[in-house]
Amino acid sequence: MVVSEENQPTVEGDAAVSKKAAKKAAKAAEKQQKKADHKAASGQPQAESEPDISEGHYGTYKLLQSSGEHRDRVYTDVKDLTVGKNGQDVWVRARLQTSRAKGKQCFAVLRQTSTTVQLLVSVSEEKNVSKQLVKFVGNITKESIIDVYGTIVKTATPVESCTVSEVELVASEVWVVSAAKAQLPLQIEDAARPEKNDDPEALKIRVNQDTRLDNRVLDLRTPANQAIFRIEAGVCRLFRDILTKRGFVEIHTPKIISAASEGGANVFTVSYFKSSAYLAQSPQLYKQMAIAADFDKVFTVGAVFRAEDSNTHRHLTEFVGLDLEMSFKHHYHEVLDTIGQTFTDMFRGLRDEFASEIASVGQQYRVEPFKFLDPPLRLEFPQAIQMLKEAGVTVGEEDDLSTPDEKLLGRLVKAKYDTDFYILDKYPLAVRPFYTMPDPNNPKVSNSYDMFMRGEEILSGAQRIHDPEFLTERAKHHGIDISKIAAYIESFRLGCPPHAGGGIGMERVVMLYLGLDNIRKTSMFPRDPKRVTP
Amino acid sequence: MVVSEENQPTVEGDAAVSKKAAKKAAKAAEKQQKKADHKAASGQPQAESEPDISEGHYGTYKLLQSSGEHRDRVYTDVKDLTVGKNGQDVWVRARLQTSRAKGKQCFAVLRQTSTTVQLLVSVSEEKNVSKQLVKFVGNITKESIIDVYGTIVKTATPVESCTVSEVELVASEVWVVSAAKAQLPLQIEDAARPEKNDDPEALKIRVNQDTRLDNRVLDLRTPANQAIFRIEAGVCRLFRDILTKRGFVEIHTPKIISAASEGGANVFTVSYFKSSAYLAQSPQLYKQMAIAADFDKVFTVGAVFRAEDSNTHRHLTEFVGLDLEMSFKHHYHEVLDTIGQTFTDMFRGLRDEFASEIASVGQQYRVEPFKFLDPPLRLEFPQAIQMLKEAGVTVGEEDDLSTPDEKLLGRLVKAKYDTDFYILDKYPLAVRPFYTMPDPNNPKVSNSYDMFMRGEEILSGAQRIHDPEFLTERAKHHGIDISKIAAYIESFRLGCPPHAGGGIGMERVVMLYLGLDNIRKTSMFPRDPKRVTP
Repeated sequence: MVVSEENQPTVEGDAAVSKKAAKKAAKAAEKQQKKADHKAASGQPQAESEPDISEGHYGTYKLLQSSGEHRDRVYTDVKDLTVGKNGQDVWVRARLQTSRAKGKQCFAVLRQTSTTVQLLVSVSEEKNVSKQLVKFVGNITKESIIDVYGTIVKTATPVESCTVSEVELVASEVWVVSAAKAQLPLQIEDAARPEKNDDPEALKIRVNQDTRLDNRVLDLRTPANQAIFRIEAGVCRLFRDILTKRGFVEIHTPKIISAASEGGANVFTVSYFKSSAYLAQSPQLYKQMAIAADFDKVFTVGAVFRAEDSNTHRHLTEFVGLDLEMSFKHHYHEVLDTIGQTFTDMFRGLRDEFASEIASVGQQYRVEPFKFLDPPLRLEFPQAIQMLKEAGVTVGEEDDLSTPDEKLLGRLVKAKYDTDFYILDKYPLAVRPFYTMPDPNNPKVSNSYDMFMRGEEILSGAQRIHDPEFLTERAKHHGIDISKIAAYIESFRLGCPPHAGGGIGMERVVMLYLGLDNIRKTSMFPRDPKRVTP
Repeated sequence: MVVSEENQPTVEGDAAVSKKAAKKAAKAAEKQQKKADHKAASGQPQAESEPDISEGHYGTYKLLQSSGEHRDRVYTDVKDLTVGKNGQDVWVRARLQTSRAKGKQCFAVLRQTSTTVQLLVSVSEEKNVSKQLVKFVGNITKESIIDVYGTIVKTATPVESCTVSEVELVASEVWVVSAAKAQLPLQIEDAARPEKNDDPEALKIRVNQDTRLDNRVLDLRTPANQAIFRIEAGVCRLFRDILTKRGFVEIHTPKIISAASEGGANVFTVSYFKSSAYLAQSPQLYKQMAIAADFDKVFTVGAVFRAEDSNTHRHLTEFVGLDLEMSFKHHYHEVLDTIGQTFTDMFRGLRDEFASEIASVGQQYRVEPFKFLDPPLRLEFPQAIQMLKEAGVTVGEEDDLSTPDEKLLGRLVKAKYDTDFYILDKYPLAVRPFYTMPDPNNPKVSNSYDMFMRGEEILSGAQRIHDPEFLTERAKHHGIDISKIAAYIESFRLGCPPHAGGGIGMERVVMLYLGLDNIRKTSMFPRDPKRVTP
């Protein structure tokens, strides 16, 4: 193990402090050294008597504590290692994805986010590269972060296995910045393996969902996951930007609430000082209060909690809600059209701005491109029932659609209209929450709608009742304790414009846009009835 | 009470349904009518035998259920009632802020968000305006939402009390869309009254904080509150946009966690199916795990929970955290400078994009414009201690600053450097969390920083320890149960770049940017130990 001189701790400040500090720092450095020695032991045996021409050009850094060493060193990103820079010497900090030492050479792959480049460490007198250095690199644990100083060299044939294929990096210095442990709980290459059935690769080891989630930090390093969560950030950004441009105001609603707002089922209880409270199942009541408070059009992005013991591919106990609410003048379709257009704009934004990320996900998962119409397709509930009936499924006019019905309907709609997104309007009143406005012409029907992606519901919304007496009547009808929603009902005694809105499950949007099969793939640290870690 | 014919329910759909529907709808309309009659009774006595030339031009709409009436009616916004449209007839939907009937005339103020215009209803044969109509308008309850059809008329002298001062609206039709109750728990004019001490208005009725919060929907309608929450939306948007432009990725971290991550104090417990869990006190561990998972630079905006029984002007039990974390190459000052620049850019954005909102807040609260430097001022802890010492306050070199110390320091910094924002670097290690990286040169000092606005802390941050053994040692030193943060520590066994970050309290930023005196003014529905409603 070699520590270059510039890595020695420096001592500054007044004498009294610095003496002590120096002592401590020296001790710390010694400790660090021991650890590094241990780590590097197999790579660079101290016993070897042969002189090492690479001495001082490799090893393990002591802990990077911002002491200011190398502060003028400029690093180059892997993606910027281009053939135009052939012959240039650069510093690169990246993960060692894989390495294979063979005699006097070691081939390795360096990875930065999802970009990769080949690293060649080859014994060379000219470059002062010793076989000890080659061996050292061959022994660096996979996924360690290393600093490499090397020359950008154009390759004779493209390196097919790397995203940077025209050049490789020929190293003359290699330093370990942060070592990964030797036995990783999963291999990135296994976690990243394509899931296509017709692929011979499919026979190789796969990593199951729980192993992935138990070791989420590693799992998230696959190209598909790097892409999924960048797309997810894009969904949120597009949602907010599109609505902000349309005059919506972002609000924040409390997650701790005094009463289970929507009937008391599926709600988590929180101990709140000497009393107890609940976790909000939606920002529903608050975004409506914001409308009553003259904010006119509002949206909110935040955590939503459901104490539902559902262990399915599409349920989480905590998810991110993209909620919006909007006053309207004449008809709730003003709102429905705004939401529909928001989706269309979002889908267009994803398609145009995230093409490479979508392709990355496609490398691992079979992804049919998401299809949508502009303006989006809107059907009415009776039409859906008719389509299902023609396909041999009977649904009552006051029944909700089951999940299999919804999926079948999605396929029928796709076949007939060639769209993966559509709006289903005019749900039966009986299957909607108490605050849903009934249809003025049919007491069994409501001014409510769901929106679907690839046959799964991703938004539920409606015109809300803005009349306090009628709202009270409907709440009682649903068996809701009026005293617990007093502040909510009171809002409508203060004058409130007609309004409608909806709530979107963010993780579902990302899952279904990408055609993934499990919502746990689109929640960075998912929560379900059986999982609250990591 | 008059219901115009076009307000009658129409019947559509197939015969069987429509018969029933028509019956129900008719019943509903009857009910509605009764209610409306009751409401409008004082305004439009049915007994009056005099013929009414305004019949059919005023009254209370039945509940707006999106039946499609008036669908082609175009409404004009109050802000668009300009002198250039003098003589035009328009429909306006707005709140009736105040009204004053006097014989054959009624003067009223219409309000839309924060814009206001004078409404004149005056008996006129030409316009078919009867004294019944004038009386009806005079009796509409304050804060009701009404539809007005009227003529835009240039006023002889500006209407000082309205934001639209060059024109007034002369009504020929007035309809109540949503009536407010007669006895409001607070008056908007009281809630909006300027708080300046030298103002004679100051002697008039004020509305105390609890009354405001108990009736938040009304309180939020004041021009200052309309502005505050638009500025707050701006703070979030600027924070995200600035970081997104710098290559940060937005992430979402779980709020339900399995163990109290930061020592166990001040944490809310949640019942989680047959077990229990906790509410996250910060996204700290998760954003660091995202860094270990190769996301390089991340931010997150979301709810943060503190079970602290602190009833002060600046503590909430639930607030919105603006958190960021970033890997760096050499020195945590790369991150510190990024955060500092983010604030500077945000302050500039607020100043440039929200001038009118800032002025609205200034109308009610005394707001000194917020001053900042570019680049921001950075001081080191010993400098702060020295400044305080010179001002007669002694702080130990390993002590934290008390709130009064911080405020005094803020005043000293303002006096010396003319900035309301500054960064205080290099806090004593003893007063920082276990995961804080110690200074390499002084074991009593850490690579950590706070940032201040008007002398109050709004960000706390640091370089984090990315070495698992050292982190374990420091956690033990802080008495933390290692088994409970196993997944967190494990992240650093998988290779992790050096990184630093910080967490910002959104409501504090808005409060201090605007110079407000209580954080409850910048939380739409604040939560403190004594308040979980509305």
